[in-house]
Amino acid sequence: MRFDLTSPGAASPPAPPWATSRWFNLPAGHDSLALDELRGRVIVLHTFQMLCPGCVFHGLPQAQRIAQAFAGEDDVAVIGLHTVFEHHAAMTPVSLEAFLYEHRIRFPVGVDAASEAGTARDPLPQTMRRYALQGTPSLVLIDRAGRLRRTGFGAEEDLGVGAAIATLLAEPKDR
Amino acid sequence: MRFDLTSPGAASPPAPPWATSRWFNLPAGHDSLALDELRGRVIVLHTFQMLCPGCVFHGLPQAQRIAQAFAGEDDVAVIGLHTVFEHHAAMTPVSLEAFLYEHRIRFPVGVDAASEAGTARDPLPQTMRRYALQGTPSLVLIDRAGRLRRTGFGAEEDLGVGAAIATLLAEPKDR
Amino acid sequence: MRFDLTSPGAASPPAPPWATSRWFNLPAGHDSLALDELRGRVIVLHTFQMLCPGCVFHGLPQAQRIAQAFAGEDDVAVIGLHTVFEHHAAMTPVSLEAFLYEHRIRFPVGVDAASEAGTARDPLPQTMRRYALQGTPSLVLIDRAGRLRRTGFGAEEDLGVGAAIATLLAEPKDR
Amino acid sequence: MRFDLTSPGAASPPAPPWATSRWFNLPAGHDSLALDELRGRVIVLHTFQMLCPGCVFHGLPQAQRIAQAFAGEDDVAVIGLHTVFEHHAAMTPVSLEAFLYEHRIRFPVGVDAASEAGTARDPLPQTMRRYALQGTPSLVLIDRAGRLRRTGFGAEEDLGVGAAIATLLAEPKDR
Repeated sequence: MRFDLTSPGAASPPAPPWATSRWFNLPAGHDSLALDELRGRVIVLHTFQMLCPGCVFHGLPQAQRIAQAFAGEDDVAVIGLHTVFEHHAAMTPVSLEAFLYEHRIRFPVGVDAASEAGTARDPLPQTMRRYALQGTPSLVLIDRAGRLRRTGFGAEEDLGVGAAIATLLAEPKDR
Repeated sequence: MRFDLTSPGAASPPAPPWATSRWFNLPAGHDSLALDELRGRVIVLHTFQMLCPGCVFHGLPQAQRIAQAFAGEDDVAVIGLHTVFEHHAAMTPVSLEAFLYEHRIRFPVGVDAASEAGTARDPLPQTMRRYALQGTPSLVLIDRAGRLRRTGFGAEEDLGVGAAIATLLAEPKDR
Repeated sequence: MRFDLTSPGAASPPAPPWATSRWFNLPAGHDSLALDELRGRVIVLHTFQMLCPGCVFHGLPQAQRIAQAFAGEDDVAVIGLHTVFEHHAAMTPVSLEAFLYEHRIRFPVGVDAASEAGTARDPLPQTMRRYALQGTPSLVLIDRAGRLRRTGFGAEEDLGVGAAIATLLAEPKDR
Repeated sequence: MRFDLTSPGAASPPAPPWATSRWFNLPAGHDSLALDELRGRVIVLHTFQMLCPGCVFHGLPQAQRIAQAFAGEDDVAVIGLHTVFEHHAAMTPVSLEAFLYEHRIRFPVGVDAASEAGTARDPLPQTMRRYALQGTPSLVLIDRAGRLRRTGFGAEEDLGVGAAIATLLAEPKDR
């Protein structure tokens, strides 16, 4: 299908729920944010690590541009997820909080929950594993019905990303 | 409506026909290209002047990225239009042809026809006047039904442009 | 004088010694690096904070370009100094080590020693205070004789920086 | 020697005189500009073609940055030379004049004189041939004594160019 989107039918499984240990930049009145709460909206899930150069130079600036370009669309939710799978001691929530402040990242950012086996035995956090992400940055698009429609790894072109989001937006809400 | 697009109804007039004196990069078998021939497709009309820095640094590279990002979409036509309204003697078709070759611009490019009153009396070429363009670069989007849906002047963000094109693509063909 | 350099005479005081608590990327056989050990060489001292966007996007890439452009010059030493004056808990040596590794920064980097009064009472580290730096990133040039010749704050142009370093290189060694 | 400069001795031949058919942006009172008139100054000779993308995107913006970075140095002269060796009919002085105006190029620019054999038999202009330039853009550095000290082809790093110019500036005037 167009713009690297899977078709809205059976080929697109429901997006797995997120497992998070903490959130930043939540809207007033929230102390967490579940995927289900966003049902009916197109979700742009940007996963990153604060010390990953590809995230800092490409992924996060693009996520900020997406948040700005679609700011007028209530139907689009831009969400960040800090999926630390290396240098765990170097990227704690204390460091992340200062990073988000200094880089002026204003959209909600969750901290992906560490493996229940412990990071020493399994360095990948839970949501990253559920979504089978290849690394950071990854850009995940979820449609209004909660289906996983696109997962991209690495630098992506703005034109194609904008086209993919708009294509999901144009799909009927009750599809 | 979304992404600076006018609504597909009465607010969107039919796009005026183009008046051209010459074409470059036409598909085999064509010696010109009329708007009517592209009915049913989404048209991205990029107007420029070869000596306009905003066109060279921003507009044309974006048009090339659009052509590449939507290369797989038969329903999208990227068309250039050389709308010379100043320095007429400096931007002749001879110079334009070398410019297109050197900058590796491969999509069809028409030369906007000079005013019938003569450029000395009216420097604006005919199509530029019909579309009421403010200058160069301008990016014009025309929907499948031939309606003018968006006219932008100056540098534009890739995300919004990609979203606008995809929104037109998602509209039903017979609308 | 040229390129924002002070004159080599009385107007240029000796550069203060550095106070560091730790080093990364030291040459083999060193466990620290003092200013005096570099006497006779032109010193490019780049001060930064790992979570400062101006450092990440402009300062550090420039320092890396400097290290590369002058790689053939034994007479030039590029040195980094991590001058943390805010978010102290977020920019510990553990985080810095991962940051340097991920961003492929290979030149020696010292950690500026915290204030003896404690960062709660005086957030500025010792070397930053001695050099009266205004913030991060700052680029400090020290001549062969150990004199402070230029201190710049914020983004600087490569041409002027390259010219300033070469001007110091062209000064006689025993001046 | 440093920064791709040849040594100032016998290895550096006198720079050949320029052969020009026309000038733009000359200082008041000049109707041409010969190499000899600039003796005693460091000359940055930027050769380009107005339809060469490498010139438009890299070479000319760098030449403009050089002119700005060294604006306070009476001892530095930035000179452009339009060395057309292809698409001759597309890059006439009429087109060049509009190009310089639109791109806000303010330093003096000469038009390299066409081959005496005619461009059909020898497409390379005279100065380009005398300097044995490989193409456009090329950056030529000439020292205070009129010696050719560096000839670079293609994109060059600002740091190294700034360092090379400053090195020539630091050489004694009567050397």
